[in-house]
This record gives sequence, structure tokens and C-alpha cells, in this order.
Amino acid sequence: MSLTIGIVLFTDAEELDWAGPWEVFTMARTDGDRVVTIAETLDPVRCRKGLRVLPDHTFEDAPTLDVVLVPGGQGTRVQRTNGALLDFIRRVAPQCQWVTSVCTGSFVLEAAGPAAGKRVTTHWAAFDEFRSLAPGIELVENARYVRDGNLVTSAGVSAGIDMSLWLVGQLYSVEHARTTQMAMEYNPAPPYAALV
Amino acid sequence: MSLTIGIVLFTDAEELDWAGPWEVFTMARTDGDRVVTIAETLDPVRCRKGLRVLPDHTFEDAPTLDVVLVPGGQGTRVQRTNGALLDFIRRVAPQCQWVTSVCTGSFVLEAAGPAAGKRVTTHWAAFDEFRSLAPGIELVENARYVRDGNLVTSAGVSAGIDMSLWLVGQLYSVEHARTTQMAMEYNPAPPYAALV
Repeated sequence: MSLTIGIVLFTDAEELDWAGPWEVFTMARTDGDRVVTIAETLDPVRCRKGLRVLPDHTFEDAPTLDVVLVPGGQGTRVQRTNGALLDFIRRVAPQCQWVTSVCTGSFVLEAAGPAAGKRVTTHWAAFDEFRSLAPGIELVENARYVRDGNLVTSAGVSAGIDMSLWLVGQLYSVEHARTTQMAMEYNPAPPYAALV
Repeated sequence: MSLTIGIVLFTDAEELDWAGPWEVFTMARTDGDRVVTIAETLDPVRCRKGLRVLPDHTFEDAPTLDVVLVPGGQGTRVQRTNGALLDFIRRVAPQCQWVTSVCTGSFVLEAAGPAAGKRVTTHWAAFDEFRSLAPGIELVENARYVRDGNLVTSAGVSAGIDMSLWLVGQLYSVEHARTTQMAMEYNPAPPYAALV
């Protein structure tokens, strides 16, 4: 069994939202596994903080995916009405083992459909915005990531790292996730106490 | 006072080594501050796990820096003999408020000079390699990052996030670092216990 994990990129995607999961999945991959970036065209994607990245595939030539991940960022609001991106998600989601988002990527999964009837989360600062856009969906607060069936949505930005490690535990094994965590030396120690 | 933070890129730099700090510093920046990527040429840089990034500046046209950051990755071994990159670090380091590295980026700072006589750290899996390359330098184990004068070196990959948040506390204020941490929702929760 080899895995293909696709990370969707778009203008104003937040950098760490996708770069964290990218690091986790590429660190975890074994022979034959692929982690690819996918965007509407092969042009450089300008992310929210100005980083420019070259995607590996377009929505048309993307390989069959086992996992799709939609990052967040300010750009997710525009993507909620981008038919090309929404169509891509609608096309690949039914074939995926896991459909996932980081941060406000859940806004896109809501617009595309896979979040319908599911419990989800998003960035804490976007809770009210999410509720007003999708009043029928149950929003979970105070969770690093929420799994409902094969949909997994994470909280903001860095939470994508935790979610991706959890997914590595599901896709490979808990032992393999621990090895991955060690390889990326992820025993985090935020230097200043208390978020509040 | 406005700050300019430069992140050096090269072939086979490890993605999260620079993308973590990029997220922290761009989240923290206030009006006038800049965070830029700098490489030998403006060609796409192919990172260790295959991500291709377009750098903002070359070593020749880089702005004056307040902070320089050298990521790690397998490519650091080759960079230890890349005169163009070593010369750039030698030129900018004396003007920088902070000279920093993530993971095996310390291998490059050692080759370029700024680590001479300083206590440093690196990725845990590279301790022995570092000691054999630089027997005269004191290597600190079991630290997320080590500050010695204006040199700050972090442990592997994800440790660059913690180091960068610490630097935000120094460059701006502890309060600002807390706000940054909150904005990137960095209250990490690795899903599987114990690294050992």
C-alpha cells in the first residue's frame, strides 16, 4: 500500500497551515508514498505572508489522493466561491480515506460540501464568522482537531501539525507517528507562558 | 524602528526549519517590518522534501538585516563549502542584532565563522557529526535553543518555532510574543505521548 497526500494551495493560504502538515507527512512517508501540492494552475502561488511556492500539480493532473488537506488563511473566503477549487474537492473527497482542513480551511470544506452535517473546528478568531456563514454546522471550540467520520478539521495555523501527526498514527501506526515526531524534534516548548 | 529579518534558503534546506520561523516572524511583524527569503540566485529553491520556493532576494541585492536565520536540512553539508553563501553570512553577521540557525543550520554558522567560541545546539541526530566536524565548539544537548551573546541556535526542525517566538520576545516584547503565539494558535498538543 502506498499513500498519496494532496495539499491544496491557493492565493493567500497561510504558510504554516500547509507547511506544518507538509513537513509531518513528508517526514513520515515511506517508499512509494507521495506528498504533493495542488493548485488551480502551475503558476507560483502567493501565500498570505508573501511566500511564493510552485505547485506540483493542477486540479486537472493531480494524482488520485488518499488524503486531501485544505489549509486556511485569509484566502479561504474567496475560495468559497471558486468553482474550480470547489469542484476539485467535490470530485476527490469521495475517493479519499481522509478529508482534512487546517484553520479556516474548514470554511472551504463547508462551501464544497464535505463538512455538511459534521462537527468541525477552525481558528478561534474565526468562530463567529464560521457560525454566521454556516449556522447549521456544529462548531467545536477548545479542540486541537476534530474528527467526525473521515473528516478531520484542525484549529488555527500550528494546530495542523498536531492533526497531521494524529493522521500519521492512523495512516501508518502510532509507533510510526512517534518516530516522525522525534525526527522533526517535535517536543514543543513555547517560550512564554499562558495563551491568555 | 523597523526590522528586517532574512531567511537564507539553499538546495535541500528542510522545509519546516525555515517555514516555522517565517510564520512566527511574519505573524509578529508590525508596520515597516520585513521578512524576506534570500538565496544565491532568484531561481526556485528545491527544498529537502521537494517543495519549490521562489526567493525574494539574492545575496547581492538583499536588504540590510537585523536578524539572519540559517535553516538546517541535509543541504547544510554542501553549504559548508559554498563560498557565496559563507561570504554572505560573514558580510551580514557583524551588522545583525541576532545571528540564528535552526537544526543543522549551526553547521553552516560554524563553517562561516559566527559560531566560533560559542555554545551551540543542533538536531539531536546530528550531535556526533557536529562534534567530529567542530571538536572545539561546545555543543549543548537537551535544549530547545541556545543563546550565546547574539548567536541563537535551535534544536531540530520544529524547535525553530520556539526559538523564533523567543526572539520575538526580545525584538518586540514578551507581550507581543504572546499575541503572536495566540494568533498562530501555538498551544501545541502532540497527539502521541513521549518521544522515547
